Amino acid sequence: MPGSTITSAPTVTLALDDARRVLTDALGGSGYTSAEATVIADHLLDCELRGLSYAGLARAVSIIERLRATEPPKPIRVDRETPVSAALDGGDQVGYLVAARAIEIGLEKARAQGMAVVGARRTWYTGMFSYYLERVVDAGFVGMIAGSGPAIVAPHGGTEARFSTNPIAFGFPTAGGPVIWDIGTSSITHAEVTLAGRLGEPLPEGRAYDPEGRPTTDPSAALRGAFAVWGGHKGSGLALVVHLLGMLAGASAAPEGISDCGFLAMIVDPAALGDAADFGARAADFTESVRATRPLAGGAAVRVPFDRSAALRTETLRRGRIEVTAPVVDTLRRIALAN
Amino acid sequence: MPGSTITSAPTVTLALDDARRVLTDALGGSGYTSAEATVIADHLLDCELRGLSYAGLARAVSIIERLRATEPPKPIRVDRETPVSAALDGGDQVGYLVAARAIEIGLEKARAQGMAVVGARRTWYTGMFSYYLERVVDAGFVGMIAGSGPAIVAPHGGTEARFSTNPIAFGFPTAGGPVIWDIGTSSITHAEVTLAGRLGEPLPEGRAYDPEGRPTTDPSAALRGAFAVWGGHKGSGLALVVHLLGMLAGASAAPEGISDCGFLAMIVDPAALGDAADFGARAADFTESVRATRPLAGGAAVRVPFDRSAALRTETLRRGRIEVTAPVVDTLRRIALAN
Repeated sequence: MPGSTITSAPTVTLALDDARRVLTDALGGSGYTSAEATVIADHLLDCELRGLSYAGLARAVSIIERLRATEPPKPIRVDRETPVSAALDGGDQVGYLVAARAIEIGLEKARAQGMAVVGARRTWYTGMFSYYLERVVDAGFVGMIAGSGPAIVAPHGGTEARFSTNPIAFGFPTAGGPVIWDIGTSSITHAEVTLAGRLGEPLPEGRAYDPEGRPTTDPSAALRGAFAVWGGHKGSGLALVVHLLGMLAGASAAPEGISDCGFLAMIVDPAALGDAADFGARAADFTESVRATRPLAGGAAVRVPFDRSAALRTETLRRGRIEVTAPVVDTLRRIALAN
Repeated sequence: MPGSTITSAPTVTLALDDARRVLTDALGGSGYTSAEATVIADHLLDCELRGLSYAGLARAVSIIERLRATEPPKPIRVDRETPVSAALDGGDQVGYLVAARAIEIGLEKARAQGMAVVGARRTWYTGMFSYYLERVVDAGFVGMIAGSGPAIVAPHGGTEARFSTNPIAFGFPTAGGPVIWDIGTSSITHAEVTLAGRLGEPLPEGRAYDPEGRPTTDPSAALRGAFAVWGGHKGSGLALVVHLLGMLAGASAAPEGISDCGFLAMIVDPAALGDAADFGARAADFTESVRATRPLAGGAAVRVPFDRSAALRTETLRRGRIEVTAPVVDTLRRIALAN
């Protein structure tokens, strides 16, 4: 997803509480209730904790800018509902709020029925699916989330955009902690292309096509053309699957800009299929055996998805502060004062 | 999954009806009821129609050999059940039967409730997930199947086997026909390694490790060591996800031989989330737009998953006959006569 990436700018150090306050003050007066601002701020701060600064405080600026530029969003509405399913109309609300609501509904249904599927459409900026899956996993459930958006990625063998960066994620509760796999299906992220453009650096080879369909390493041509999909024909098939899952949730096949994106979440109670504690223990043993796999000669230890992200967060929490680019903090503070 | 691959052998041409009879006659007298033999034969013949001969008639020989070498399987049993879920104990029955039963149960539940999850453990040789997903899609539902098995694939960065070839598949009903994505998460298939071994040919570089963890192109060393996973760290994460989904269904983390494999199927009724006909029409338009993507200069048209398989099957059905290696047909006919 597009995001503000400001680079080569001076940074300021913020204590975590201060960073949270900068976020809630700016969001809180910009049309969001205090509760909504808290929900969004928690997600953006988690991005900062996990080292994803382009999706952290900087994102709040983009959210507020879009909010000011568009019609006021409508309340999130449940369009269709059964004991195991719900389809939400996001009402053009930011995805951080829509997904939080979707996961809340999905967990309630999964608790009662053993599983649930929740889809949402008409939303934008949903952030990290791993953030929501951590809630799902903490509640003891297995989850999957897939989401689609505007066309920016070419299918394998093609040179025109059809897919979005189409993320897909799965999360599992284990006795050794959450295992969460969360990937994008493009060979390069929007943030990476934007950053290369701002730094005046070329993209790596093979990651993009220009508007005429020629391979390009020029970030600006890539943004007007298409990114290459990840993983050749297999990865391209997965990107198509994710796009169709988003459309199943009601998303448009080719949303305009960042509006009208969608996502689909599935939640399963391990107890529906067996003993949940036994699964958690076996899954922990198995992931530990994966970590303990003999590495390549001279190579690093084998990593399990989410390990690095969780370790980074632990380290940032221990440090108690983050580095944020000064213009982002200034902008957010000015917004808060003007409210 | 391991499969008999007989190569460099003379072939015989069989009319499709004759091929089906060769299969049902051999399976029917080998411990399978006529109904069971029909279910297995239909799957194996579909493999032949789609050009996957190693998983076709030759597989029947492997099935019968294993059946003779092991304790008689127990009836398939439902261990745990809710209105939206079922956990099956396959009783060491062949997967073609267990998966057919699992999908039947899943479809019944999804018809009544809008969605379902069905897991199965203690089974082996499940064949093509796309075969089952075609039934799911023909019934108007979206489906996912993932399955785990014996350790034969190393995680990314590792040189010891932890995963199986761990297939995962998704299927979607569209007004333009089924879209089914069905992949293995290893960089090379068991059948490809076995075939290279029989032909005395090396494997491509980067696909396997020997038992000491060194990269190898020797098929026999690869079979004693580990295959490389597909898709680097992203693909390795997906392989882990599939393994955990199999374990969620009750499969062992590291089955011995081909026993104690498992799979998990999820089925969703598009009508639970929106208008099913509208989804089918939008999905057809979208997949058609993917096919119509401007190809790479001098490249072939962009393909959508299942298109090639479906076209091959149509062509084989039109031809009305298949080529099968003579020793396979001889063996199956001898088995039928001896029954």
